Amino acid sequence: MIRTPYLLFLGDAPDNLAAKVAQGIQDWRPENVVGQFRMEGCKADVGAPDMSLQDAWDKGARTLVVGVANRGGVISEAWIAVLAEAMEIGFDIASGLHNLLRDEKVLKATSARTGATLHDVRIPTVAYPIANGKKRSGKRCLAVGTDCSVGKMYTGMAMDAEMQKRGLKSTFRPTGQTGILITGKGVPLDAVVADFMAGAVEWLTPENDADHWDHIEGQGSLWHVSYSGVTMALIHGGQPDALVLAHEPTRTHMRGLPDYALPALEDLRERALQMAQIANPACKVAGVSVNTKALSDADATALCAEIEGRMGLPTVDPYRHGAGRLVDALLEL
Amino acid sequence: MIRTPYLLFLGDAPDNLAAKVAQGIQDWRPENVVGQFRMEGCKADVGAPDMSLQDAWDKGARTLVVGVANRGGVISEAWIAVLAEAMEIGFDIASGLHNLLRDEKVLKATSARTGATLHDVRIPTVAYPIANGKKRSGKRCLAVGTDCSVGKMYTGMAMDAEMQKRGLKSTFRPTGQTGILITGKGVPLDAVVADFMAGAVEWLTPENDADHWDHIEGQGSLWHVSYSGVTMALIHGGQPDALVLAHEPTRTHMRGLPDYALPALEDLRERALQMAQIANPACKVAGVSVNTKALSDADATALCAEIEGRMGLPTVDPYRHGAGRLVDALLEL
Repeated sequence: MIRTPYLLFLGDAPDNLAAKVAQGIQDWRPENVVGQFRMEGCKADVGAPDMSLQDAWDKGARTLVVGVANRGGVISEAWIAVLAEAMEIGFDIASGLHNLLRDEKVLKATSARTGATLHDVRIPTVAYPIANGKKRSGKRCLAVGTDCSVGKMYTGMAMDAEMQKRGLKSTFRPTGQTGILITGKGVPLDAVVADFMAGAVEWLTPENDADHWDHIEGQGSLWHVSYSGVTMALIHGGQPDALVLAHEPTRTHMRGLPDYALPALEDLRERALQMAQIANPACKVAGVSVNTKALSDADATALCAEIEGRMGLPTVDPYRHGAGRLVDALLEL
Repeated sequence: MIRTPYLLFLGDAPDNLAAKVAQGIQDWRPENVVGQFRMEGCKADVGAPDMSLQDAWDKGARTLVVGVANRGGVISEAWIAVLAEAMEIGFDIASGLHNLLRDEKVLKATSARTGATLHDVRIPTVAYPIANGKKRSGKRCLAVGTDCSVGKMYTGMAMDAEMQKRGLKSTFRPTGQTGILITGKGVPLDAVVADFMAGAVEWLTPENDADHWDHIEGQGSLWHVSYSGVTMALIHGGQPDALVLAHEPTRTHMRGLPDYALPALEDLRERALQMAQIANPACKVAGVSVNTKALSDADATALCAEIEGRMGLPTVDPYRHGAGRLVDALLEL
């Protein structure tokens, strides 16, 4: 559990894309953001007030979140100086970088001396159990994709936000680094040891009120041979009551696998549902979430209508059209 | 890679079941076994010559393999004394126990001083890659089960042994602790980090001669919600050309999951094949392996005949009937 609210560290990000983790936090949890800290030469701006470390601390910020990718996989000296200074003031530091904060001598020593916590959210900190498969109260929704990186996290966050807006009981359950930094907790599933993957998902989505929905962040795809095991652990550990099919229509092959074609949405529906019904026979497919970022408004609307007609399922781009119809479909199940 | 041949350490095993790892090595790789070492009170006997540490060393043994389960999960003082003495003589030590050898102070210190290697085969020692899904030359066979612990390892080892006997090119590829100790190498798949599971299986089953068969040890089951992700990584990382369906007919529910029924063999065939054909469209189901240990000879024969008639696939218990018909089926694919 990462202490909130945050000061977002954008470092010397060359553009907004490099700061997409910080942008995600600002977009989805603005109430957790006190401000952004930018170094000289920073070209990113996520729209939060610029603030010094001390000002942010005085305004209540308690964790400095590294919301930016590091160039060349190196945590630069300039970054380290800022991060160390933040710990001296009292901040914890959180990061989803591949290079771990704890592996940087200066940061580790400063953390030890000041008592500040270094959160490397790529590394699990919990001894997860082996999954027991027992039925849990409460409802769960999982997005499954035709491929990796097709909008599964976004779909879950948008559905959660829509339910919150309507005053319904709902929690987004992150399973990846960005989601964990956005919400302050979750399971870095791709870093969990194989035997405990499904158990980690059970741990993440415990018993709850009968009318409460968990929106579990999906990972990978049953068709993506590098990560399909992680997807399977989500389907069985999450024992979802509802699946949402996530798709990106311009992808020409599976991400990183040029010889692998994407499945048809019909095949994804059939096989993901078969697998999900092993853990939860009542599971149903609620709708389709299409990432239409690469399309015009007209093309996006036409594509969603075409898929909706073909599949007989409510089909939207939750970013473009809102997640209202997906939430309606959940509530009708 | 564990140095062979072995001296099998049976400790103070209360019965043969407690020494089943040692028995597996003796059954499947007798050429790797110089003898067995039994302590006072040992009630197990795997059929290898009893031998002192020094005699075994003089006869060429190079690794003392802990082939016995430890009572109560504790490595006793009496065991430690023997293991340390073995290292003084020159042995390496290999173990698949949950408690790690390296966590025992005396063993760690003795290892450091003598240069002996401690092999804790539950812990991966390789930085496995992320799977790339590229087609590899050579053939691969994977046993998939209706449940855990239904004879998948045994099936693979029996098929490998049959092919070796016929002078065909064949390798058994262990993915669990027992198989690794039996053969001296492999991947402890259940201990691999999620992102690298499929890549570890690719690493284990590299390019090979076009007429060479890998027999990959299966794990878990697509229907076992605790471990289905591991099974999926084997199906996609192994890109098998052939599947063998493994089944134990007296199981009343999934192992450890009282609320979960076993799938029909027909469902296993259909869904495992669909998933396997994502990575290898040419994959076929070669046959059925039934663990008939709990049945009489007559019942075993009748059951195999019934399944064979229903499924249209060669069906045997490889322990009882030999793996010849399964190997015939592989070669006919």
